[in-house]
Amino acid sequence: MNKKCFGVDLGGTTTKIGLFQLDGTLIEKHEIPTNKEENGIYILDNIEAFINNVIVKNSLDIKDIIGVGIGVPGAVTDDGVVNKCINLGWDVTDVEDIMKKKTNFKIKVGNDANMAALGEYWKGGAAEFSSIALVTIGTGIGGGIIMNGRPINGFNGAAGEIGHIPIVYDETETCNCGKKGCLEQVASASGIVRVAKKFLIATDKPSTLRGAEEISAKLVFDEAKNGDIVAFEVVEYITKYLGLALANVAGIIDPECFVIGGGVSAAGQYLVDLIAANYKKYVFHPCKDTKIVLARLGNDAGMYGAAKLVIDSSKDS
Amino acid sequence: MNKKCFGVDLGGTTTKIGLFQLDGTLIEKHEIPTNKEENGIYILDNIEAFINNVIVKNSLDIKDIIGVGIGVPGAVTDDGVVNKCINLGWDVTDVEDIMKKKTNFKIKVGNDANMAALGEYWKGGAAEFSSIALVTIGTGIGGGIIMNGRPINGFNGAAGEIGHIPIVYDETETCNCGKKGCLEQVASASGIVRVAKKFLIATDKPSTLRGAEEISAKLVFDEAKNGDIVAFEVVEYITKYLGLALANVAGIIDPECFVIGGGVSAAGQYLVDLIAANYKKYVFHPCKDTKIVLARLGNDAGMYGAAKLVIDSSKDS
Repeated sequence: MNKKCFGVDLGGTTTKIGLFQLDGTLIEKHEIPTNKEENGIYILDNIEAFINNVIVKNSLDIKDIIGVGIGVPGAVTDDGVVNKCINLGWDVTDVEDIMKKKTNFKIKVGNDANMAALGEYWKGGAAEFSSIALVTIGTGIGGGIIMNGRPINGFNGAAGEIGHIPIVYDETETCNCGKKGCLEQVASASGIVRVAKKFLIATDKPSTLRGAEEISAKLVFDEAKNGDIVAFEVVEYITKYLGLALANVAGIIDPECFVIGGGVSAAGQYLVDLIAANYKKYVFHPCKDTKIVLARLGNDAGMYGAAKLVIDSSKDS
Repeated sequence: MNKKCFGVDLGGTTTKIGLFQLDGTLIEKHEIPTNKEENGIYILDNIEAFINNVIVKNSLDIKDIIGVGIGVPGAVTDDGVVNKCINLGWDVTDVEDIMKKKTNFKIKVGNDANMAALGEYWKGGAAEFSSIALVTIGTGIGGGIIMNGRPINGFNGAAGEIGHIPIVYDETETCNCGKKGCLEQVASASGIVRVAKKFLIATDKPSTLRGAEEISAKLVFDEAKNGDIVAFEVVEYITKYLGLALANVAGIIDPECFVIGGGVSAAGQYLVDLIAANYKKYVFHPCKDTKIVLARLGNDAGMYGAAKLVIDSSKDS
């Protein structure tokens, strides 16, 4: 029972590397800067070197390492090829193949949001549920879907991209993705700030937000909780669209549970309750009691999910 | 290589029973009326008797029958329990268990729309694709999703219920399901007729639809193809919402292919092209080239899918 694995969450700024027991116990975790110089050609070498370092320092037996799971911030196909990753400077990159040749370990690669979903499904907020959709509300909105214990990647690696479903029909501004009306435009941290500024211009109601040096999503939620009318209108508006989006997801895949993560989820049960109220309004009736819970693993979720991905794959083979 | 199976598509009016070779060759098919008397207590007995009849008439060896797959018009959980079926008069019914005890064959049960999707995936319009979403546009709108070769049932058996995703925000009338704004309210056969009548009242433009004895979805498409302006506006309106719905599905599960079936799909490539044009407008860019094809198996799709379900399950065990 000395078997172990590594779970790696490769991010645009830092890379998290965790050494896990196969039951999900995190033995140790580390964070190294992601070196994006020269189109990210050093990234995989750095991960390899760091893993070897952990192995030597802990006097681990190579035979006990069942493999390395890696989450990357880009679309990943079912066979572990990263379909471009602008964030890291990568073109199409066969990460599984490259890392396998470097390390001789079994390598499994997944999209970072899908890995976060798998992590929450395994050891986080959704550990007791059989199928989940994770929605991470941060700077953008991402998501991941776990059905039958596995992440759904999608044919183009775009499954779970809940932030870019077309949902705001009267949107006049353009999303980063080039379209208009994406969920991310109103309900991400930056979207919430954008909506708040629009609402403040459109009304002359008093609001504590007007005096703020800088409006943040956190401030909007804090002031809404404190009874500020305009802040509450903003929160009502954005949770209406989150409820609609979850109702869409339910009508398509009907998960047992929704998990809300990302920085904005710090607004806690208050946010969940408002999303749930709107969800119930819009969803097809068989799904009206679907659970909505908060994520629990924070920034470690992706690392956990990556570890789980390689553990599951070693069971298959 | 004498192995065979039965695929049964249990409908509200008739039940289709097909005898299949395991490679998908349909040996013979039959249709019997569905006897819904006394809350449908005779339905499963009738299917059993008919199957036995086919076995005897063909002098089949019982040992060569690997099982019976059954599609039912209701929500089905992963373990084959039908979660009520108002259409048949059934309360919660463990069809797998009941039929197994009656017949001694391996029994697998699925939702009829999911079975149609599995049929089209196996031997129909989507036979060359790895993952699909089927949308059946008939009296209502149904759907089924196949990922990794298997139907997604959903926790409440409601996955693929694309007809009831909330999509028309300014809808004033109520859907059969009790909500307002479901896709089915505008884009099903009856929805198309409803929209056409509303459009005719709202405009004084001339239209051949005004003289029609009865407006049908077929007539609307025929007249739109013939250049009738109001009919074309109706078609534009409903294909906009179909495009939006498919864009939603793509952002959530990113299938390789969409399959359009049901009676309204008789409008053919004309319908597909209009849906595709709208889909491209609204979808997240990595999914913009997702194929949209017509279903090919017509009313036999569910029978094929039910056969495939039991074939796959016999491979697992």
